[in-house]
Amino acid sequence: MKTFTIEAINEVLQGTLVGHTNTAIIGPEQLEMAQSNHISFIGNKKYLKLWEGSKACAAIVNQEFELEPGENRALIKVKNADLAMARLLEMYVPESPAFDEDIHPTAVIHHTAIIGKGFRAGAGAYVGAYCIIGKDVTLYPNTTILDHCHIGDHTTLWPGAVIRERCVLGHHCIIHANASIGSDGFGFRPSDDGRGLVKIPHIGNVVLGNYVEVGSSTCIDRAKFSSTIIGDGTKLDNLVQIGHNSKTGRFCLMAGSSGLAGSVTIGDGVIIGGGVCVSDHVTVGNGVLIGGMSGVINDVEDGKKVLGYPAVEARDCLRQWAFLRKAIAPTK
Amino acid sequence: MKTFTIEAINEVLQGTLVGHTNTAIIGPEQLEMAQSNHISFIGNKKYLKLWEGSKACAAIVNQEFELEPGENRALIKVKNADLAMARLLEMYVPESPAFDEDIHPTAVIHHTAIIGKGFRAGAGAYVGAYCIIGKDVTLYPNTTILDHCHIGDHTTLWPGAVIRERCVLGHHCIIHANASIGSDGFGFRPSDDGRGLVKIPHIGNVVLGNYVEVGSSTCIDRAKFSSTIIGDGTKLDNLVQIGHNSKTGRFCLMAGSSGLAGSVTIGDGVIIGGGVCVSDHVTVGNGVLIGGMSGVINDVEDGKKVLGYPAVEARDCLRQWAFLRKAIAPTK
Amino acid sequence: MKTFTIEAINEVLQGTLVGHTNTAIIGPEQLEMAQSNHISFIGNKKYLKLWEGSKACAAIVNQEFELEPGENRALIKVKNADLAMARLLEMYVPESPAFDEDIHPTAVIHHTAIIGKGFRAGAGAYVGAYCIIGKDVTLYPNTTILDHCHIGDHTTLWPGAVIRERCVLGHHCIIHANASIGSDGFGFRPSDDGRGLVKIPHIGNVVLGNYVEVGSSTCIDRAKFSSTIIGDGTKLDNLVQIGHNSKTGRFCLMAGSSGLAGSVTIGDGVIIGGGVCVSDHVTVGNGVLIGGMSGVINDVEDGKKVLGYPAVEARDCLRQWAFLRKAIAPTK
Repeated sequence: MKTFTIEAINEVLQGTLVGHTNTAIIGPEQLEMAQSNHISFIGNKKYLKLWEGSKACAAIVNQEFELEPGENRALIKVKNADLAMARLLEMYVPESPAFDEDIHPTAVIHHTAIIGKGFRAGAGAYVGAYCIIGKDVTLYPNTTILDHCHIGDHTTLWPGAVIRERCVLGHHCIIHANASIGSDGFGFRPSDDGRGLVKIPHIGNVVLGNYVEVGSSTCIDRAKFSSTIIGDGTKLDNLVQIGHNSKTGRFCLMAGSSGLAGSVTIGDGVIIGGGVCVSDHVTVGNGVLIGGMSGVINDVEDGKKVLGYPAVEARDCLRQWAFLRKAIAPTK
Repeated sequence: MKTFTIEAINEVLQGTLVGHTNTAIIGPEQLEMAQSNHISFIGNKKYLKLWEGSKACAAIVNQEFELEPGENRALIKVKNADLAMARLLEMYVPESPAFDEDIHPTAVIHHTAIIGKGFRAGAGAYVGAYCIIGKDVTLYPNTTILDHCHIGDHTTLWPGAVIRERCVLGHHCIIHANASIGSDGFGFRPSDDGRGLVKIPHIGNVVLGNYVEVGSSTCIDRAKFSSTIIGDGTKLDNLVQIGHNSKTGRFCLMAGSSGLAGSVTIGDGVIIGGGVCVSDHVTVGNGVLIGGMSGVINDVEDGKKVLGYPAVEARDCLRQWAFLRKAIAPTK
Repeated sequence: MKTFTIEAINEVLQGTLVGHTNTAIIGPEQLEMAQSNHISFIGNKKYLKLWEGSKACAAIVNQEFELEPGENRALIKVKNADLAMARLLEMYVPESPAFDEDIHPTAVIHHTAIIGKGFRAGAGAYVGAYCIIGKDVTLYPNTTILDHCHIGDHTTLWPGAVIRERCVLGHHCIIHANASIGSDGFGFRPSDDGRGLVKIPHIGNVVLGNYVEVGSSTCIDRAKFSSTIIGDGTKLDNLVQIGHNSKTGRFCLMAGSSGLAGSVTIGDGVIIGGGVCVSDHVTVGNGVLIGGMSGVINDVEDGKKVLGYPAVEARDCLRQWAFLRKAIAPTK
């Protein structure tokens, strides 16, 4: 177990140390649940009152808060406690699951696959024919990569992740448990006798940029032709749906259970709330913010904040909500 | 195939037997689809008329319903046909998938893992280093448990279920196919140059109480630090999203495709309808009922019924719906 | 890599060839991204202007569009460019992932299972006891079929797909990555002491008709008793939830992240948009269209188009939306 002194922690956080504790600190914990060897944090005024009753020997606090450390307790005052906390967590990252051997005897790597240095594959991992795998790629147990995929350096697949044939993943990507990349897009045509549906082949693929993160049970469908594309640094939460031929820009965030239908285009730096749906062929500009559970059925210009179903400018949606509240209020 | 006589069934259900059938009953079936060796049930008046035309040799009916059994047919009159049906199903539970050997030769159990009595692991199951597995735990094929997990007694993982490192599952839990427990929470900070996103390490874990059920493709993310917690007896349906550091109380129900964002707190006995989203940091009291497809963005007090987006008291939401219906009605 | 001449393509599409190109065409691509050996297509007037600047050597266009092919470039004029494109894609379908051996040495097929001709099973695939598998069934790596299942001819399971015990799949079905078929329905009864929840056994199964497609991470729960049924030719997109005892008719489409609660009945030819939820015990008639993100809480008659939450006739929902827009408009 890692422990750090309060001084070692402050050296990383570069805050102002007030008071002192000689406890070996084992990690962060919430104020109410902390033991005496935990460090906590206070990023919001309403938690100030919990400090005195907490067992934590230390806390990271916003510098404008007035607080007494107490005996054998210390405070690290910083500009932004949330950001400092993120840095603290980096100090305490535990070791990843171990690999006794680089390639487990039950893993299956096709003999035509080209494997980079530092490759590790857990029990039951599978790499198909003609794949090209970069350096320091980690496949946890029971992951599957089908034929002709390219996987960039330092990319990690967690258990149950599936990469279908001919997909391309960039460097430093993280694919979480049970994510599915490259399944067929959802496209059918009426059969010639008009009494059924015929599958439209989806011969394209999925291309992920660098530093892309794909959440658990998230699905990114392959393109009908050409590619479904997720831009560099874009992060998809769990249970996200990306339809065939959709494209996101760089550094977007899509929260849990949101989805893009087919052929959607999303700009750079777009933030999409949980449960949002974006309709087929819609274009969303750079820097757009889409509030949770919105349904976006029209194009959205750069920099707009939209909300509701159908999504409109957020302030208009809030006015619609207020109007409805008033409309049913008892008239006195 | 199990068969029971009508008397044997009534001995379990403790109802009033009216009429008689000497058929060996092979199980329950709906009135319209039943064969002569099926038992059916009538818990709602509107189905009474189907009894005469049904082939079923018996039915479980609410005691207040007037019905003639007919020749070689029987009725079991009970207080609550739905509840009696649940008990009948317990009589007919078929055998679970077989294990020819307790641990299949292709399963991989790390030599440092500690395994309880009655442990069974199917083909391709994986248990990582330093795991502690209780008694009578069943891992179906292609399940994965990474390092340092604790799994309680009588807990079952169905195929494709993934438990990431350092998570804790209670006794009598059921983890359905392709569920993901312990994936990284969705948290990022702006990079120092302001032009990207840096992953915030999530060093916490997930803790499930006893008798917790986790549906297929449901995702429960690990905490940033400390634990994401699901209380004893809480049941999560399929495709549910539980964000990092969220907590549910005991005996909650979350229906399909619902989700909690990060740091949500849910009380005891809360019922959450399908497709609901609850925003970050919201607190929901004990015994709350959240109607389907609601978006909960504010705290909810104990015992309230809420509905809509933004969720308000259910009766107010119904009035908003009625207002809109009237607002567009043609004026005559 | 497959290539075709423009004449070979037109022979399949049966359009009118205008102009000529002698390029060996490697496949379709969008106008903006095409190289000189690509064929593109124009099904919408607004893309006409991109033709001149595109590198594509050919395009499939709607016959009513006026367009000059240019030098060494050709147009194939057709009634419906979208439909022609679907046929073109069929010409270019690449080979599926390879099987070096019909049954990979790490696949586990229970000795009591009955396997049809042309059966292929990838690394880590599992088939349980007493399964009956039809002809030309393909199991990609890390798929799981538990005991007593019946799988029809020409059916394919992609990696991570799970079929629980006693389920029945028709012919020509496609089960995408990480789909879960036959998990327990979500049903509980109050415990006898009223202080908890007891699991109701789900002893039924799931039955898929022929030509059914099930998307990635889609979940179809087994029936309490009897069967959860998906009709012939019905296609479910990714992340779809089908509750226990629900039934769909033939040739339905359910888009991503939509769901049916328990005991829902859906007619033939129903189209359900993304993010839709349908409540318990609701009946939806034939040919119904349910707009995206709708919440259907009442029965819907044949042929209706419904939208909104609660779903009403689409035109009424649009009027409600218009009413709200106007209600908040500034009065001048």
